[in-house]
Amino acid sequence: MFRKTVRLSTHGEGQIINISPQVEEAVRESTLDSGLVNIFVTGSTAAITTIEYEEGVLADFLRALNVFAPDDAEYGHNTRWGDGNGRSHVRASVLGPSVTIPFSNGVLMCGTWQQVVLVELDVRPSRERTCVITVTGDAN
Amino acid sequence: MFRKTVRLSTHGEGQIINISPQVEEAVRESTLDSGLVNIFVTGSTAAITTIEYEEGVLADFLRALNVFAPDDAEYGHNTRWGDGNGRSHVRASVLGPSVTIPFSNGVLMCGTWQQVVLVELDVRPSRERTCVITVTGDAN
Amino acid sequence: MFRKTVRLSTHGEGQIINISPQVEEAVRESTLDSGLVNIFVTGSTAAITTIEYEEGVLADFLRALNVFAPDDAEYGHNTRWGDGNGRSHVRASVLGPSVTIPFSNGVLMCGTWQQVVLVELDVRPSRERTCVITVTGDAN
Repeated sequence: MFRKTVRLSTHGEGQIINISPQVEEAVRESTLDSGLVNIFVTGSTAAITTIEYEEGVLADFLRALNVFAPDDAEYGHNTRWGDGNGRSHVRASVLGPSVTIPFSNGVLMCGTWQQVVLVELDVRPSRERTCVITVTGDAN
Repeated sequence: MFRKTVRLSTHGEGQIINISPQVEEAVRESTLDSGLVNIFVTGSTAAITTIEYEEGVLADFLRALNVFAPDDAEYGHNTRWGDGNGRSHVRASVLGPSVTIPFSNGVLMCGTWQQVVLVELDVRPSRERTCVITVTGDAN
Repeated sequence: MFRKTVRLSTHGEGQIINISPQVEEAVRESTLDSGLVNIFVTGSTAAITTIEYEEGVLADFLRALNVFAPDDAEYGHNTRWGDGNGRSHVRASVLGPSVTIPFSNGVLMCGTWQQVVLVELDVRPSRERTCVITVTGDAN
């Protein structure tokens, strides 16, 4: 098992960061030939998924999150705690904090238009995010 | 690999149980130092995710599920089988049955406000749920 | 670790294929007794989840996807690229590309009414899909 923790600075709600380069680098550093890589984000107002990293799709994706957890709805979390990120929690829990991806010959088995992304959902102007990348599998 | 099966009694639709204590206990019992823990719920009308276990967020989360699978919609499953849990199936399949979380020094790498939860989505007044916790990784 | 790549032909948006037989076969071929099996679909317009493989539920599930990513909405992806599958990308990213399931005594620990499925979300009349099945665990 090889473990790498990546720290990322985000600047605001709805930022989507392509972390495929960091995931691919962790797989290379592991020196494993084939196996699985798990990517997990620490915290309850961010998510990990795969998506085509294209400006149009990213905007479409964020708009969908606004359907089931609208910007302008009333949130019990906001009423109780006043931090205004009720929608962030809901969106993060629906999307989930992790994804597990196979690799072969040291290369992710994603499609050409399928990138691994960190989705910043919190409403704060900036945050530090921790992604834990865990690589398991067989050496050559 | 260490495997532990946890049985939980639920009492109704929308109950959300914080199972972080059981997951942490399984990691301790595994005696592994660092690795990954997978939590899976058996059955097609419950789900596993992570969330801040706070009453406001939990209510907000359940309300979001009602947007894409409303309580009062007509479901083909209900028409065919008459068990009234069509919405439960839909919500469970969107959320997914499992999550995989890294741990280090025997401790989950979740955020302080990020708990692992079982979401009971079925409409029956009570159910027995089976969570399968699988711990893999390296000894110290 | 045992790896099997399964290729499937799909014929249109909204087709849901029960791939539990292929997953169970991969577990048998691995000759492992207990562990975890990860199922991942390559590409950004398909998804993997679990569901009761029953015609009513499948239709209900597809209708839910249309709530947060409607057929008739305008998509930035479509405007930019003209391939008309903006909704497919959004739905796939919300559902996710993979699921990880425990097995014991060579048998998946799913419920009786819980099947593993590939969800074809693209709008093309036919596609070839690649599912990567990775089995890890202990021999008897």
